[in-house]
Amino acid sequence: MIRYGTIGTNKITNEFIEAATISRKWELTAVYADDAKDAQAFADQQSASTAFSDLNTFLQSDGLEAVFIASSPIRHFEQIKRAIQADKHVIVQPPAVTNPTEFAAIEQLLADHPDVRFFEAVYPLHMPNFENVAATLATMPAIQGATFVAMRDLPGYDQVLAGQQPDGFTLASAGGALQIVGLYPLYAALRLFGRPKKGSYFATAIQTGVDGLGAIFLEYPKFDVTLHIGITTDSFMPSEIYGLHEKIVIDNITELKLINHYDVDKQNNLLNTITYANRLTGEALAIGNVLENLNDPEQQKQYASWLQLARDVHTTLFHLRSMVGIKFPTDR
Amino acid sequence: MIRYGTIGTNKITNEFIEAATISRKWELTAVYADDAKDAQAFADQQSASTAFSDLNTFLQSDGLEAVFIASSPIRHFEQIKRAIQADKHVIVQPPAVTNPTEFAAIEQLLADHPDVRFFEAVYPLHMPNFENVAATLATMPAIQGATFVAMRDLPGYDQVLAGQQPDGFTLASAGGALQIVGLYPLYAALRLFGRPKKGSYFATAIQTGVDGLGAIFLEYPKFDVTLHIGITTDSFMPSEIYGLHEKIVIDNITELKLINHYDVDKQNNLLNTITYANRLTGEALAIGNVLENLNDPEQQKQYASWLQLARDVHTTLFHLRSMVGIKFPTDR
Repeated sequence: MIRYGTIGTNKITNEFIEAATISRKWELTAVYADDAKDAQAFADQQSASTAFSDLNTFLQSDGLEAVFIASSPIRHFEQIKRAIQADKHVIVQPPAVTNPTEFAAIEQLLADHPDVRFFEAVYPLHMPNFENVAATLATMPAIQGATFVAMRDLPGYDQVLAGQQPDGFTLASAGGALQIVGLYPLYAALRLFGRPKKGSYFATAIQTGVDGLGAIFLEYPKFDVTLHIGITTDSFMPSEIYGLHEKIVIDNITELKLINHYDVDKQNNLLNTITYANRLTGEALAIGNVLENLNDPEQQKQYASWLQLARDVHTTLFHLRSMVGIKFPTDR
Repeated sequence: MIRYGTIGTNKITNEFIEAATISRKWELTAVYADDAKDAQAFADQQSASTAFSDLNTFLQSDGLEAVFIASSPIRHFEQIKRAIQADKHVIVQPPAVTNPTEFAAIEQLLADHPDVRFFEAVYPLHMPNFENVAATLATMPAIQGATFVAMRDLPGYDQVLAGQQPDGFTLASAGGALQIVGLYPLYAALRLFGRPKKGSYFATAIQTGVDGLGAIFLEYPKFDVTLHIGITTDSFMPSEIYGLHEKIVIDNITELKLINHYDVDKQNNLLNTITYANRLTGEALAIGNVLENLNDPEQQKQYASWLQLARDVHTTLFHLRSMVGIKFPTDR
C-alpha cells in the first residue's frame, strides 16, 4: 500500500480518495488544508487519517510516501516543490503548472531527487475507454484528422459578468479555457497523434482578460486536429476521429462514456468496455502500479512517456496561450 | 410566369425544375445540353420544353427570360457571360464563379445590362428554417460564437484514391472542399454575422492538389466562428450558435431539417416550421418574387443584399483558398 496524503479538500480530492480505496493500492494517512478546522473536518470525513495545516509537518508526517495535490492551480508549483524536496511522490490535478518554466524547475528538482516520481493526474487518459479509442485508432489504415470538444458552461462566468474575479477565470489564478479545460483534449490529441508540428489558437477573451472560448488547430504532417474548448458555453458536438470511410465518435473527450466506431461498412460498433463508477479509478490503478513497481522496466517506460507527454502538453499550452497574448503573474 | 431555360441535365436541375413548377412562378421553355441527344432526352423527360445543343440558339429561343445554370462550375463563368450578354436573368448553382475576378467581370457585365438580374442560388438561405435561425438569433442578447459543419464523404474521393481526376476534386475543375461544400456554411456565417474582420483556413490537401478537409476560422469583433468543411469524410457534429446559457443547434447547416433552441432555462424549443419536400422551393419562390417585382423597392433591396453577400463570400473564399496556396487555372 502506498501511504499518501492529500492537499485540498474539494470534490476531486474526495473522488481520488474513493478511487484510491477502490484500487486497494493506496492508504490515506494525512490530509492538509490551510485552515486547521477545514483540515480536521476533512480528516473526520475520511476516516483513519491525521489533519495538518502546516505543510512541512504534513510532509514530514509518519510514513508518508506520496501526496495528491488538488489545490488551486496557482498554488501547485510551490506545493509540488516542497513535496519533492521532502522526497514524496507527487500526484497533481491538472494543470500541474502554469507554464513550462515551472515544469522545467520541477524536472530539475526531480533530477536532484531521483527516487521521487511526479504525475499530472489526467484521469481520461487512464480510462479503459481511452485505451479502446487508441486500440481502434491503431487498426485504421488512414487517419484524416480529428475534432475534440471540451466546452463547459461553468458557473464562474456568471460571477465574472457580475463583476467578480472567481478562481479559474482570472489571470491572477492562471485561469482561462486553455488551462481549465483545454489541457484535456490537448492531452488526448498528443497522446493519440504525437506532438504537432504547429499549433494555432483563436480565442475570445472575457472581461477578466483570460480566454473564455476558443478553437485550437494542431497541424500534423498528414492531417490536422481541431480542439474546441470553452468555459463560457457548452456544446452538443461529439468528439470525432476521421478515417477513410470510418470514424470513431466519442460522446465526451474528458468523460469517455460512449465510444462508437462507425466502420467502413457504416456499421456502428459500440466500443464501451469497462466504465468505472468512479472516473479516477483508472488513474489510481495506473499510478499505483508505477509506484509499486519502481524497478519494473515496463512501468519505468510508462512513467517516462507520461512525463514526456506532460512536458509536451505544457509547452504547447504555453505556446497557444502566448499566441493570444495572455500573460500570467507566474510567467517570467 | 417567368419563362426560363436550363443549362445542365443533372439531379439539381431536376430539383430546380420541380421546385419552379411547385412555386407557380416559372415556366420551363428550353433546355440546353452540349450533346443534342442528352438535350432531347432531358427535354422529353421535362414535358413542354424545347431541346438545344447550341448555346446561342438556346439563349435566343422564343420568349426566354431567364436561365438556370447547373453545369460544371468551371464552365459557369462563360455561360453566365453569354446569358447576360443575351439579356437573360441568370440563376446559377454555387459556386457561381471560381474567383473574385470572374465575379467582378460579371458585375461589370451587369452594369452594362441593367435589366438583367444575377443570382447565386444558395438554397439553404431561402429555406424557412434559415429565417427561423436568423429570427431566434436576433432575440439572443449575447452571441459567443458558432460552429458550422459541412462535411461529406463524397464518392469522388475514392476515384481520386484510384488515380482518377473526378470533377470537383481537381484543380482543373476548380474543385476542393472550399468550393464544393465550404461555400454553404460560409454563406450562412456571412448572412447571419456579417463580413468577418479576418479569416483563416487550415486544410489537408488530397493527391490532386485540392483541399479535402479543413477548418475555417472567422474572426468577428466580439466572437469567432469556426467552419468544419470536407469532401473526404462526413461528421456527426451538429452546427451550433452559442449565446449566453443558450444555444441554437442545427442538425445540418445545408439542409436545416431540425433546428433546436436550447434556451437559458435549458428548455429545448423545436424551431421547425415549414420544411418544403423539395428543398429548392424556397429559392424558386424568393428569386421568382424578385423577378416578378423588378420595380418593388423591397425586392430591389433584397436583390442588392444577395449580390453583396455573394461578392463577400467569393472574396472570402478566394482569400481562404490563397492562404493554403491552391491555384485554379482560372486565376490570373
